Amino acid sequence: MERLPGFRDFYPEPLPHNDVWSCDARQYVFDTWRKVAKRYGFREYDGPPLEPLELFTTKSGEEIVGQLYNFTDKGEREVSLRPEMTPTLARMVAAHERNYKKPVKWFAIPQLFRYERQQKGRLREHFQFNADLIGETDPAADAELIALLIDTLRAFGLTAEDFVIRLSSRNAWQDFYKQGGGDTAHEYEFFQIIDKIERATPEESEKKLTALGFSLAAVTAFIESGKPTVELDSILQNLAARGLRDFVKVDYRVIRGLAYYTGVVFEAFDRKGEFRAIAGGGRYNNLIKLISGGKVDLAALGFGMGDVVLVELLKERGRLPKFDSHMDVFVLIEDETLRPLSLKLVADLRAAGYAVEYPLTPAKADKQFKRAQELKVTYTARLDNDAYVRIRHLHTRDEIVAGFADAANHIEKK
Amino acid sequence: MERLPGFRDFYPEPLPHNDVWSCDARQYVFDTWRKVAKRYGFREYDGPPLEPLELFTTKSGEEIVGQLYNFTDKGEREVSLRPEMTPTLARMVAAHERNYKKPVKWFAIPQLFRYERQQKGRLREHFQFNADLIGETDPAADAELIALLIDTLRAFGLTAEDFVIRLSSRNAWQDFYKQGGGDTAHEYEFFQIIDKIERATPEESEKKLTALGFSLAAVTAFIESGKPTVELDSILQNLAARGLRDFVKVDYRVIRGLAYYTGVVFEAFDRKGEFRAIAGGGRYNNLIKLISGGKVDLAALGFGMGDVVLVELLKERGRLPKFDSHMDVFVLIEDETLRPLSLKLVADLRAAGYAVEYPLTPAKADKQFKRAQELKVTYTARLDNDAYVRIRHLHTRDEIVAGFADAANHIEKK
Repeated sequence: MERLPGFRDFYPEPLPHNDVWSCDARQYVFDTWRKVAKRYGFREYDGPPLEPLELFTTKSGEEIVGQLYNFTDKGEREVSLRPEMTPTLARMVAAHERNYKKPVKWFAIPQLFRYERQQKGRLREHFQFNADLIGETDPAADAELIALLIDTLRAFGLTAEDFVIRLSSRNAWQDFYKQGGGDTAHEYEFFQIIDKIERATPEESEKKLTALGFSLAAVTAFIESGKPTVELDSILQNLAARGLRDFVKVDYRVIRGLAYYTGVVFEAFDRKGEFRAIAGGGRYNNLIKLISGGKVDLAALGFGMGDVVLVELLKERGRLPKFDSHMDVFVLIEDETLRPLSLKLVADLRAAGYAVEYPLTPAKADKQFKRAQELKVTYTARLDNDAYVRIRHLHTRDEIVAGFADAANHIEKK
Repeated sequence: MERLPGFRDFYPEPLPHNDVWSCDARQYVFDTWRKVAKRYGFREYDGPPLEPLELFTTKSGEEIVGQLYNFTDKGEREVSLRPEMTPTLARMVAAHERNYKKPVKWFAIPQLFRYERQQKGRLREHFQFNADLIGETDPAADAELIALLIDTLRAFGLTAEDFVIRLSSRNAWQDFYKQGGGDTAHEYEFFQIIDKIERATPEESEKKLTALGFSLAAVTAFIESGKPTVELDSILQNLAARGLRDFVKVDYRVIRGLAYYTGVVFEAFDRKGEFRAIAGGGRYNNLIKLISGGKVDLAALGFGMGDVVLVELLKERGRLPKFDSHMDVFVLIEDETLRPLSLKLVADLRAAGYAVEYPLTPAKADKQFKRAQELKVTYTARLDNDAYVRIRHLHTRDEIVAGFADAANHIEKK
C-alpha cells in the first residue's frame, strides 16, 4: 500500500534513499524556527488543520476551491484542509484580541494542503513557518518582521551571499496606477500583470498593460528607478541600524499574488536564483476586519516560509547538519546474571537525563559493541560486578571504573 | 466565523478563558514526550495526516468508516484523515525496514481525527504520543516499552500514587477461551464482551457469555485470580529490576477493543479512576504482515497516549507548570535619538541568544516599564549614551552599567 502522491513520509536518519524526507532534518528546521521566533518575542499558536470552507473563500474568493482539499463532513458541513494559516490567525485574533496587548507577535508551524496538479518536485502539503505582527501600522513593525525573516535564515547558516530580501510596496504601485489614470475597478488586474512580468514575454505584458491604459516602458522605468518610498526608506534605515542592510534590496517587480495585501510586500530569494521563493509576506491591514465581519479592525503583516524550498536550499549549500541517533551511552550486558542490575543502571542513567541503549536480549559481546558503534554512542558502560561500573569513552578511549551510584557523574552529555 | 465543533484552537498564555487550550502547555507536553523517548533511544518519524482510506479499512474493517473524516479527492481517490498512527507506521516500516537495524524503536506525535458524535468534552481531534518497538518477540521488549510509558508519565511529575499500568494478556484470554471449548470463529466476539465487562450489567455479560458457552462466574474467577502468565511474570520482574514494580498491576479486565492485538495489552489509568484511560497499547505481531500484503513479517508492539486526558489530569493534579512570555530582556528607549543604537543593542542581544523585546514606536518611560513588567522579563537594558548600557535585574533590583559590546556578558538566560 502506497502513500498518496504529493505527500511525504518522514523517516529517522540514516535515510534509505536521497529522495526520502528526514524527520531529524524536519525537527532541526522546526527547532530553529522556534528558537529565533522566541528571541524576537513571538509566541506560538495553532488552529485546526480542518476549517469551515467559508473561512478560505471569504478571503480568496470561490476560485480557490479548485486548489483545496475540501469535502462535506458527516454533519453536512462544507469543510477544507487549510491551504494557508492567515485566515485561521485572523479568526483567532478576532475572537480573543482583547486578551492580548498590542502589538500581538505570534508564530505558528502549520502543515498546509493544496490540491495542485502533479509536477516533478511539487508537493501537495508542506510545513510553513508563519510569523505575524498585529496591531501596529508604523513601518517599524515591518522592519521588525523583516529582521525576524533575515535572522531566521541566518540561523541556518545562510549569509548575505546566499539570499536577499526583495522589498516592495503595493502602496507605491497603487500611487503609480492612480497617477497613470488607472481605473480602480481594474487595479487588482494590473497588480497581477506586474506579478507575472518576470515570467511573461514583453509582448504579452505590453498587450495587457495597454488594455489598461499603461505602457510597458513606463512600468519598466518605474521598476528600474528602484527609488524607495518614504515608508520603504524608513524600513531600510531601521534594518541598517540593526546591521542588516546588506540583506535587503528594493525590487518593485515583487508585488505578491494574493489579493489581500495592502502595503509593504517582500520575498526572500536565493542569490543564485536557483530556487523558488524561500519566503514571502506583507501587510494585510483589512483582512481581520473582513474575517471578523467588521467587529475587529486591526492592522497586520506577516510572512510564511515553507520547509520544502528551505531544506532543498540548505542541502544544496551543504548547510544541513549531519544527524545521528543522539545516544550517549550503550550499557553492555556480557554476564547475564548481571542483567537485573544492568537494567537498574540503564534506568538510573536515563533518569539522570542520558540517552541510553542496551541489548534487549542476550547477545555476544562483539555484537553488542558493534551495535554501540552503529549507534555512534559516546560511551559504553559495563558492570564489572554488583558494585562497580566500567565506563569507556569511545573516542578518547579513556576508561574509568566508578561506583554504581556514582556512574552518572562520569558521563558528559552529547 | 467559528471553528468546527470538536476542534481546538491553541492560544499563547495567559489564556482568555479556562476552556481555551494553551499552545504553551501543548509544547511543554510535546517537549516532554520527545525528551523521554530520546532517553530510551526512540527515534521520531511522521507520515501524512491524509492517507488512502484502504489503509485504515484493511486493518479495522469497513465498520470504522462511520467514524472517519473520509472523502473522495479531486483525483477520485478514496482518502481519509488518519484516525490512528499504527497503520501508517506499519506501511512505513514495511517500505524501508531493511534500512533499519532491529529492534526498531520509533515514536511520533501525530494529530488524529475521528468523527465522533458530539458529547461534552469529546473532541474530534487530538494529539497522540505513539511509541512502537518492532522486530523483537521477547517480553523484554514489552518491558522496555512499558518502562517508557511509566517514565513518560513520571516526567510530568506524576507518581505511583497518581497512576497505575493495568497489565493484561490476550494470550491468557486466548488460552482461557480455548480451554473452555470456545469456537475460534467467535473469539473476537468473546474479547469484546470482556472489553465491555466493566461498563455492562452482570446480566448482560452473563447472557452474552452463555451464548458462547461460558459463564460469568468462570470469567470473574479468572479475572480475580490475577495470576500472571509466565510472560507477564517476566515483564514484572524486568520492571522490578528497574525500580518500577509499584507502577504496574496485573488486571485481566483489560483486553483492548481493537481487533489486531495479539499478546500483552495494557492501559494507564489515574488511581482515583476519575478519567478515561491515559494511555493504552499492546502487541500486534501480525499487523505489519497484513499491511504489507505478506511481504514483511515483523513482531511489534506499541502504545498511544493522547494529549487531552493527560492535560486534564495534570491540571486537576496541579502538575501543569505556569507559562509566561519567556522573555529575558526589555530594551527601554527613552531618548529617541538613541533608537538606532538601541536597535543595534536589541539585535546583538538576540544574536547572543536572548529573548528581547522593545517599544516598536516612541512611548513614555512609565508605559515602557509597565510593558516590561507585563512580559515578566528578567532584565531591562537602557542606553545611557552611545557607549554604555544600564542593565537592571527586575527581581534583585541590582543595576550595573556595562560597555555597549560587553552588555550580553551581564545577562543570564531564563
